Parts: sequence; structure tokens; C-alpha cells
Amino acid sequence: MQEKDSFRHIGLIGRPGSNALVEETVLSLIAFFDSRNISVILDEETSTYIKSEEHQRANRKILGETCDLVIVVGGDGCLLGAARDLARYKVPLLGVNRGRLGFLTDIHPSEIEARVSEVLAGEYSLEHRFLLETELKRDGRMMGASSALNDVVFHSGSSVKMLEFELFVDGDFVYRQRSDGLIVSTPTGSTAYALSGGGPIMHPRLDAIVLVPMFPHTLSSRPIVIDGNSEIKIFVSESNDFNPLISCDGQGGQVAEPGDWIYVRKRAHPLKLLHPKPHSFYEACRSKLGWSEIL
Amino acid sequence: MQEKDSFRHIGLIGRPGSNALVEETVLSLIAFFDSRNISVILDEETSTYIKSEEHQRANRKILGETCDLVIVVGGDGCLLGAARDLARYKVPLLGVNRGRLGFLTDIHPSEIEARVSEVLAGEYSLEHRFLLETELKRDGRMMGASSALNDVVFHSGSSVKMLEFELFVDGDFVYRQRSDGLIVSTPTGSTAYALSGGGPIMHPRLDAIVLVPMFPHTLSSRPIVIDGNSEIKIFVSESNDFNPLISCDGQGGQVAEPGDWIYVRKRAHPLKLLHPKPHSFYEACRSKLGWSEIL
Amino acid sequence: MQEKDSFRHIGLIGRPGSNALVEETVLSLIAFFDSRNISVILDEETSTYIKSEEHQRANRKILGETCDLVIVVGGDGCLLGAARDLARYKVPLLGVNRGRLGFLTDIHPSEIEARVSEVLAGEYSLEHRFLLETELKRDGRMMGASSALNDVVFHSGSSVKMLEFELFVDGDFVYRQRSDGLIVSTPTGSTAYALSGGGPIMHPRLDAIVLVPMFPHTLSSRPIVIDGNSEIKIFVSESNDFNPLISCDGQGGQVAEPGDWIYVRKRAHPLKLLHPKPHSFYEACRSKLGWSEIL
Amino acid sequence: MQEKDSFRHIGLIGRPGSNALVEETVLSLIAFFDSRNISVILDEETSTYIKSEEHQRANRKILGETCDLVIVVGGDGCLLGAARDLARYKVPLLGVNRGRLGFLTDIHPSEIEARVSEVLAGEYSLEHRFLLETELKRDGRMMGASSALNDVVFHSGSSVKMLEFELFVDGDFVYRQRSDGLIVSTPTGSTAYALSGGGPIMHPRLDAIVLVPMFPHTLSSRPIVIDGNSEIKIFVSESNDFNPLISCDGQGGQVAEPGDWIYVRKRAHPLKLLHPKPHSFYEACRSKLGWSEIL
Repeated sequence: MQEKDSFRHIGLIGRPGSNALVEETVLSLIAFFDSRNISVILDEETSTYIKSEEHQRANRKILGETCDLVIVVGGDGCLLGAARDLARYKVPLLGVNRGRLGFLTDIHPSEIEARVSEVLAGEYSLEHRFLLETELKRDGRMMGASSALNDVVFHSGSSVKMLEFELFVDGDFVYRQRSDGLIVSTPTGSTAYALSGGGPIMHPRLDAIVLVPMFPHTLSSRPIVIDGNSEIKIFVSESNDFNPLISCDGQGGQVAEPGDWIYVRKRAHPLKLLHPKPHSFYEACRSKLGWSEIL
Repeated sequence: MQEKDSFRHIGLIGRPGSNALVEETVLSLIAFFDSRNISVILDEETSTYIKSEEHQRANRKILGETCDLVIVVGGDGCLLGAARDLARYKVPLLGVNRGRLGFLTDIHPSEIEARVSEVLAGEYSLEHRFLLETELKRDGRMMGASSALNDVVFHSGSSVKMLEFELFVDGDFVYRQRSDGLIVSTPTGSTAYALSGGGPIMHPRLDAIVLVPMFPHTLSSRPIVIDGNSEIKIFVSESNDFNPLISCDGQGGQVAEPGDWIYVRKRAHPLKLLHPKPHSFYEACRSKLGWSEIL
Repeated sequence: MQEKDSFRHIGLIGRPGSNALVEETVLSLIAFFDSRNISVILDEETSTYIKSEEHQRANRKILGETCDLVIVVGGDGCLLGAARDLARYKVPLLGVNRGRLGFLTDIHPSEIEARVSEVLAGEYSLEHRFLLETELKRDGRMMGASSALNDVVFHSGSSVKMLEFELFVDGDFVYRQRSDGLIVSTPTGSTAYALSGGGPIMHPRLDAIVLVPMFPHTLSSRPIVIDGNSEIKIFVSESNDFNPLISCDGQGGQVAEPGDWIYVRKRAHPLKLLHPKPHSFYEACRSKLGWSEIL
Repeated sequence: MQEKDSFRHIGLIGRPGSNALVEETVLSLIAFFDSRNISVILDEETSTYIKSEEHQRANRKILGETCDLVIVVGGDGCLLGAARDLARYKVPLLGVNRGRLGFLTDIHPSEIEARVSEVLAGEYSLEHRFLLETELKRDGRMMGASSALNDVVFHSGSSVKMLEFELFVDGDFVYRQRSDGLIVSTPTGSTAYALSGGGPIMHPRLDAIVLVPMFPHTLSSRPIVIDGNSEIKIFVSESNDFNPLISCDGQGGQVAEPGDWIYVRKRAHPLKLLHPKPHSFYEACRSKLGWSEIL
């Protein structure tokens, strides 16, 4: 529960083109905030389809620094990107669902005014979701870094090449593995790609990371759940004759080379995620994973 | 690291009959402690095959209250029983492996003197492993209680009857499920029955519980990992026309009735488990799950 | 496609009590056939709730010998029983769905007159589904036999006891296994219990059997698909200190002893199963396994 | 059992460079056949490291047309290539294992002379293993074709892009799926990549194909086993904004485009594979999948 007037500057993100309905929802949110004299700042990319000159536009850095709340209209993918950009500014995010399955974006457009009004009135629950950061090192030099709210996937870059790597957790050698790769997932990501790969569902409040082998050559390789503060190190075996990739939240991919080391650990600042009340993770599972028809 | 003389009273548990080698190992441990003038107290059940009158015999309560260390000779099953009996007394356990696969009992008999000497010299690592306790309630009355180091399994008592139940975690409704049952496992149990049922491996230091559905009728039911401090409640649906069972660490089974409530939560006192150094959980996985031959 | 008048004697099975709607459906089917002057023979058990004296009652043997078609009203469980009883008489079965998920009973009660009229007019497809038969032998003596349309499950009789057995296929030793048991399933059963245990879906026309280990102790144990004409032999290891069970289609269970041999093979006479046209196995999967919401 | 002199012209394949031991084994085989006055024909690629001018060299077409037997020295990968090239000529293959896990190449180099002598004496078993052929069609035009002994994998070409496609079997619509792709595997391939993806083991003599979804978005998607004579059609949905790949036996990959159709069916000529006696598929499973240590 918060002070009524704690959200005075609200950022709006809604990628154009992804879905015709996104634009419609963003416009109705603008009208809603205008009518309430709440200051709206539009995400630069988002603003391309907003004709009005009256509203401020800003890049994500400024959005993060000046907003009290950022509303993201779109699917989970859109919210993942906003989370990676904005978590460091400690601004809370609220997701409005316009895509498929949404574990993160849980306001349906049809009820948007009612739900957002409640949030403005302090009727919400606040969750912290940690992110992962990954670094690629070659001969001791940092070659690149990235972050992820769902998962860091280390993979062959092509489903037909088998990758060989060594895994270490908190300095302990775990195994040398031949597989298509390894998914390193947060609890948030446990209902996404990691779940398709046979990983367990992890409650969002759990401080844990799951390591899911992808098509492992050895049948006894299984998902491993470790403490959320563990340091994960992957050594790209010299025997690989190609360059594997590191993908964060399913984005692009950094190119690793045989002999490289990949580090994955928890990022310092978690995402602050708002949910309208009441919110239940299990209710989301029931509706999104089909558990409601369980009988 | 501990004071050299911190283990002055040592309990010995080794079920007779289970394995001819158990007796041999217990006798050699007695001789070893006698030669070092360390007081040995024999577990009542264990002592049946020990002829000598010189050594004290005691039940588990007294063992727990008077010993500085209890050594368990046998398989993981034997250590599970000792853990359930002795955890409340805070006495640490050390396991000597005489059975199959041993994640808990990690001293091999061939090296027993060397390893025990090291432990007596303070060369060991100490782990805390939490236990679960379960209560069965009928019309508000407590019908029975039990505890488990590995897992509490709620099941139909026969693999051919489908069970219907409702699951709640920390008061939140999770799902109504039709299946053969549900495995509620600690990290310690995650490499035992829960693993056979498709559950993830959980690092022993993780403060988490995994819920593994057994042959669920709905294909989208998956293992769920929750915080170790969660309260789990299971409602035995009225529609069941038979009496399901609750088994702790694979032991016997308490009989539940339709309409009953089953509660599972972490027990107050964890097991203190000693390992000779160096000890690595992943090394145990590699040798016991066959990961060493991973390439 | 068949002659219009090929179904002159129609048997009706619909277990009373299982579902209030079953009675209603059976009565409306009787009225429908009466109006068309088609002779109806009621299953003995079924007829208890039919007041009218006009209709013949018969046990399953006579039903099998005299009917041209038997209609089964109820869930898949009811049809499984009818199939085990009637397959030997080569009379085709038609299932009307009154229960949950029905892969075998695919006429919905709301469309029953239309679909049954089509079937009477020869508009149907005919499938052959093979059954399994199982024999239990002790010291060379036959101790019992049974048959199954879905699956033969050899299990510990209690989910907490691990069973040890040896498996042979066509005389070849496959493995010695420690697990909760083994599911031997036909293609028909592959969408039932075997699927919950991680087995593959097998197309009904495939001449194959799948062997699904239940909670196997060894992680590399996987479902094995073998030729439908294979002879499966299971040796109940002498080391088991309890009596495991053999269940056919989830029914009761024959008690096996350590040292026994269990034989499973295809039964001589397949079930003849009618489907109204058009019928697609994959359509049933989509609606019953939730594939329709696949995107 | 065959006539002693039925193998008069023997082809030899053993890729240089892949393994230092391959060369050694090929040379000892040449010496062995020379001493028995059996004509040896060297595979063109193979022959690069054979200095002697005395032995005939030939491409695979001629090898296939003139040899009575072709011996392949190397891992399963090498035998897969030889099978794709030579199956059409009906010449039997015999595999000598120089790589890792070998389900196809089951003569160990240490026993090569003994085993090959037995084969020459007619002491062998002959297996037929079917291959798959795949065609890619765009607007009705054939864009390419390929074949596989293990599997045809249709995939996004990168593990981080989700693919959408429609699957048809024998003209029946199965499902529209979002996943990383689909593995279409023969029984021979069922112990390879398909097994890592959760597919069942299929006995080599089974006339069946298994379809294994890769990281399916829908949790209820499961491996499906269909008749070996089925025609599989995959429609690459127009909504994909990238070009997926088709890989045969893990080789390279043909590029498909949104809107394309991919056809997969059994190839006309099976591979003839020789095994020294006694040969048991299950024995290979026990040693190669680690079932031997099952207890």
C-alpha cells in the first residue's frame, strides 16, 4: 500500500508494429492520464506513432531516472526488454498484456482503466525479480557483457552441432557435458524456455537459479537448482570446432570461442514489478499452462 | 574446524542383518575407538550382535542426548532413520557406506580409519540438512504426525488407482490434480525418489522444497520448486473412494481418508551431517548418477 | 461401408450408477431403436435400471454371440471392460461418451441420434485394436491369466516399495531394473497411463507395444517401443521381500511372488471398434490433450 | 549363413584425420585381406593416406556397384555417411568402431581379425535398416532432396528463435506447433539425437518413425510414433520471419523459407547392415546407455 500521489510521472512503452492493438491501448492510456493530470513520458521508440506534440519523449535512461512508474504495453518479450533497460533505475514496471501467454504482463486491456486506477490508488503488490548478468572472457580480457530477466542460453547456435563445455558452480566442478547447450534461468524464466526444456517451475520469490541441459548426450543429466547467489562459470572446451553463442532472453547472441570463459551471476538491482491485487502466481500457472482444465 | 577433543562420546548405529559387512565395520570401529580411549555407545538395536559387555548400550533418545557424534554404518536408508530420530538432539551424524548409491553416507569402508581419524582431528565439513514434518488432520483433530529427511509421498497406496487432491502453498490454491500422488521433497531427497519422478536436482544448501506430481493426468503438470519455509496443505478430495497413504522416506504409511487435510512444513531442527574433507556434492552426483562417464 | 441392414441385433451396455446421464442416454437409445424396429439386447448388469419387460437381457457371452453391434455408453473405462469381454466374439463396439476424456468413446450424447443413424446407414470407419494377454507362472504352473486393451501394469502394489525384476523380449535379455514397476501398453493405451509415465503417443494403427519404466532407479532407463508381436517375459527377482501386482487396464490385480514369471503378448482376436465418419486420431489428441490451444 | 566365398570384393572406408587409429586399423585390414587373396577396393577419400599402388581406388558409386561388402572404420557418423551413399546399391556394410558410442559400428578394433574372419565364413546376422528421404518444395517446385539413416531435423537454425509449423501425417492434420523444431527419426536414430530430446528407444526391426518436438511451447506436446510407411508433411508457417533449416543425420542443412513444404518418407532401399554373431540390440543399449550398472 502506498501514498495515493506517489505516481506522478508515468513512462509509457509500447512497441509499434508488433501488434495493432498496442497502439490503441497506449493511446487510451495517454487519454486516461491526461484526464487525471498525470504527467506522461513516452518511450522514444514507442512515440513514433503518437501524433500529439504535447507529451514528453525520452530515451530509456531518462525514463528510468525521472519516472515513478513505467507501464509496458505488449507481450512478455516487450517487458523483458524494458526490465533489462530499467531495472538499474529502480523504477517499478507494470505490464499490460497484448501478446500471447503473459506471466509478467498481467493486466488485460479490457480492464485497463479499472486496474490502473487501483494501482494509482495504491492497491497493488510489489515483487522483486532478480536479473542475471553474463560476461564473456577471452585470455582474461572482457569481450562483452549482457543481462537477462528470463534466461541466459549458451548454445551451439545451430541445433545440429554438439557443444562441449565444462560447468563450475561457486568454483566447484560440476561436469563436462556434450549437448546442444545450457539454459541458465531465473525463477521468472522458469515458466518460459527452461520449462520447454524440462526444467521445473520455480516460484518467483525463490532465490534460486536453474541449470537446464539442452538435449544432453548423457541421459542422466538433469536440471539442477542452485542458490540464486551462486557464481556460474562455463568453460568452452578447446575441442569445439565452431563458435557457440550466448543469448539473453532470446535476443541475438554474443559469439564465444573455444577456450573462452562465460560467467553468469545475479545482477545487483532487481526488477521492481507491480501487480494489481489480488495477484497469485499459481493462478497465472493455471490459466497459462492449462491447469484450470486439470480434471 | 573443531577442537581435537570435541568428540569424546561416540554413538554407533549399524543395523544387523541388513548386510554382513555392516557387522564387520561396526566391530572394527569399536576396536579403533577402544584403542584411542574414546567412549563408544552402541545403539540398542545395533548392539544385538556385539558380544562384548564392555560397551554401553542406549536407545536413540539417550544416544542423542549424550553423544558428541553418531556414526551410522549402512546405506542411505539407515542414515535416513537415524536422522529422523536424532536431528532434534543436534548431535552430528557421520555416514559410512555399506549399501548401494550413497549420497549421505560417503565414507567407504576401505578408508574408514583414515577418514574417521581426520574427522576426530577436526578435519571435516559440517552441513545442515532440513527435515520435513507432516501432520494429518481429520475434522480439525490431529490424527498423526511424522517426519522425513528425503521426502513425504502422498499416494494412492496402489499404482493403479487415481487420486484426486487439492494443493495449497502458503494459503494459495495451486491446483486440483488427478494423479498417482505427489512427492514433497527436500534438497536431500531431490537425488532420490523425486529424481526418478522427473524432479530437478537441488543443491543441498538450497532452502527449497520441490513438489513432484506422480503420473499426473494432465500433461502440463510439472515439478514446482518453492521456498523451504512454505507451508504445504493437501486436501484429500471427498470424491476418492479409497484411503490414500502418506509415506515418509519410503517408510510404511499413515492412512488418510477423503476429506482429510495433510500439512507438510520444515521441521524446526535440521540434521547436522559431517563429511570428511574434501567434500563436493557435484562429485557425488558425478560418481553416483554416472556423470563421470559423460563423454 | 456396409449393407444398410447389417446391424439387426444391437447390444447395449451402460453401467448404472456411474453417472446419472448414462441411464438417460441408454433409455433414449432404446426408444430410438424401438422406433426403427431394431432388436435391442440389454447387458445383464446394465438392465437393472430398465423397467420395461419388452427387451431381452443377456450376459456378455450371449451378447457377443448374438449381436451385430454393441453400443457402450460411458467413459473409456466402461468400454475397456466391454472390449476385454467381447473382443473374442468379433462383434464391433461403438462408444458413446458420458465420462471424461474419451479416446475410445467418441460420440457425444448431444449428437447421438444423428451419429448412430449414420452408423446404421453404413457410414462409419472400422478399426482393429489389439489386446494384450498376460499369464502368471509359478514353478511352471499357470497361476492366472488376464487381458487388457490399454495396458498391463506390473508394479509393487504400493508406490513406496522398489521392485526388482528382469525383462526379456523375444527371449533376449533387456535389463534388470529397480523401479516402481513397468507399464506394458498397446497403442490404444499409449494415450492413457503410459503417457503420464513419459511414454510416447503411438498411432492406433501401429503394430507396436511400448514398455514404460515407472520411476526407474536408473536415470537412463527410457520407454522402449517394440514390435506388436513380441513376447515379453518378466522375471520377479527372488530378492523382492513382498508380493508385487499385475493390473490389467487399471483393474484389481493378480498377486505375483518372487521367482514368478509373467508373460505378456498380443491376444489372438483384436477389438473391432467403430467410429462415425469422419474420424481422426489426431483430432482426438488435439481436443483431449489440449493441442488445439497450441498457439 | 552364407557361402564362404560370397565376399570376394571388399570395399574399405575410413576417413583420414578423424582419428589416428583409423589409419592403423585400415592398414591392418588391408594386410589381412591381402594375406587371404581377397580383393580390396579403397574409398577415394580414404585412400589418401595409403601409399601402396597395388590397391584399387574408387568413388562410392563404383564401390557400391562392385563390392560384395563394404567395411567402414570409424564412428557412427562415418557409417551414417556411407549408408546414405551406398544403401541404394544394396551392398551390405560392416562397421568397425573407432569413435565414441557406437550402435552401428560394433566390432572393436582389438578383435577385428577374429570378427572379420567369422563374417567371411558366413557367421553373421544381416539387418535391414530403413532410411528417410526428404524433399523441400516451394510453390510446387522441388528445391532440394536429401536422405538420412538416423534423423531429419527441421529446426530454426538457432536455438533462440521459435519456429511455427504445421504437421500432417498421411494427409491428416496433426497440429500447428511453436517450438525449436521437430526431429523425425528412424528406429536407428532413436538412440541418437531423438533420445536426447525425450523420444523413446525403438527396436531396430520396428517399422516405425518417431516425431519428437524440440522444446515445444505447449507442454502437452509429446513424441508420436507412427507407421514407418507414413508420409510426413511439414508446412513452414508464413508467420516465420526467418529461414529454418533441414538437417539430415546432423549434416549441414538445407534452407527452407516461410510457405515451403517439407516432405519426409521412407526411402525405397534399406541399408543392409552386418553384425558379427551374436548380436543383441539390448546388449548394445546396456553397454552404451549405461544400463549394465542398472543396480
